[in-house]
Amino acid sequence: MSVYAHAMEAPPQSTSRVEVTRLPARAVESDRLAVEEPLEIRVNGEAVAVTMRTPGEDEELALGFCLTEGLRPVAARLPEDLAANTVDVDAPDADLEGIRRSFYTSSSCGVCGKGALEAVAVDARRIESDLAVPFAVMAALPDRLREAQATFALTGSLHATGLFTPDGELRCLREDVGRHNALDKVVGWGFREKLLPLSRSVLCLSGRLSFELVQKAAVAGCPVLVAVGGPSSLAVELAEDRGITLCGFVRDARATVYTHAYRIAP
Amino acid sequence: MSVYAHAMEAPPQSTSRVEVTRLPARAVESDRLAVEEPLEIRVNGEAVAVTMRTPGEDEELALGFCLTEGLRPVAARLPEDLAANTVDVDAPDADLEGIRRSFYTSSSCGVCGKGALEAVAVDARRIESDLAVPFAVMAALPDRLREAQATFALTGSLHATGLFTPDGELRCLREDVGRHNALDKVVGWGFREKLLPLSRSVLCLSGRLSFELVQKAAVAGCPVLVAVGGPSSLAVELAEDRGITLCGFVRDARATVYTHAYRIAP
Repeated sequence: MSVYAHAMEAPPQSTSRVEVTRLPARAVESDRLAVEEPLEIRVNGEAVAVTMRTPGEDEELALGFCLTEGLRPVAARLPEDLAANTVDVDAPDADLEGIRRSFYTSSSCGVCGKGALEAVAVDARRIESDLAVPFAVMAALPDRLREAQATFALTGSLHATGLFTPDGELRCLREDVGRHNALDKVVGWGFREKLLPLSRSVLCLSGRLSFELVQKAAVAGCPVLVAVGGPSSLAVELAEDRGITLCGFVRDARATVYTHAYRIAP
Repeated sequence: MSVYAHAMEAPPQSTSRVEVTRLPARAVESDRLAVEEPLEIRVNGEAVAVTMRTPGEDEELALGFCLTEGLRPVAARLPEDLAANTVDVDAPDADLEGIRRSFYTSSSCGVCGKGALEAVAVDARRIESDLAVPFAVMAALPDRLREAQATFALTGSLHATGLFTPDGELRCLREDVGRHNALDKVVGWGFREKLLPLSRSVLCLSGRLSFELVQKAAVAGCPVLVAVGGPSSLAVELAEDRGITLCGFVRDARATVYTHAYRIAP
């Protein structure tokens, strides 16, 4: 379960090989793809969600997903037949009827709007961490994330989330075809390591910042969110409301801070 | 409703202004954000989905969403109060019970796994278009898409989908915080223009290619899908099965073709 083992070597199931045609040369070659497969998440024996994900760390993914949806998971386990693409979560206190009500309105939409809004309402605490992160440390995180991304270098098609200490040390790196899945995996890892809430940590994401990602960080209690890309309007509104420091376009020793800039020290 | 009007000038509701802190200078400036807001899609008066989207072309988005989910829409209209963030779709033949069954399993997952698989199964026709696209035309599409993206230049945070003729002429460009929404908007535009199935068209996407995006293109009947980023394993499998020519990493006069390369002419 070493973080760095994952960081330096892609899990074998996260890439697959395929024959491609390179143009304009028309050369037929073997190439690697990021694997995308459905995973059915079962809570207390009942299917509550199917996510398209990159295999690997499925228990962390299920735990992180359930946590950030307010389902209060206790443990997750894989079935004996891994090819079944299912994972079982125990959550004795989960309100499955409530989750079904919010999930049926979801769709192929990148985020379950109502579900997300309700999940946030369930856990609407404002983050009151006095964490301070030096600018130089924060600005270096995207490069550190990229350097640690083994699978990305192979396929060019995986999003990543990294959990860092305030000194810029990488604690956990997870990759996935879905940004939200990579973040869920990191939150699930933090849950297993008994690190939640993440009030002394910084999360760094490889892509853009949507409402959904800020919501997951808020539920996990993380005060500083850093991304290579930019945020949406709703991501900024939620970060402002929840007390999260939101840093976007972090590249080339520059950054734009959208909310609560006081946590970034000179 | 001019395509080029949209292409050259961002709709006013697609960006918003916010005060940000630029680091390391700590300069406080005004900046633009891509707007993200929930939209409730109602079919025959009943809420079936909430998507987080960039406002603008909501009727097209709802039509494209319903089409690619197999709901057979006839028309879409906005309520008098636009701030309500709802859109009404008429679909007399829609199986709403079926859509609920598949949607409740969905989540904040980027794609409703079961829903997507079932939607594809509903419309499992193989695309038999004899369309041929010259390599030089195909390879130029991402640059054309980028040039036409007005809002992207303003915020750096919007995905785009372009519908092109086989000669490389841009017919329709749509942007959104969600890749799937940008594609749904283009499909909805094609439906209104009575261009479906898109058997004589090429779709070009600004990002990566997931299963979900190939599925939507398949249901819309488009034989050639071009993207700046790379595809996932399941995206390639589905394109192979449905007879779609899948081109990824199209940049710098090079491309990788994953399936059915015969449609790309020298």
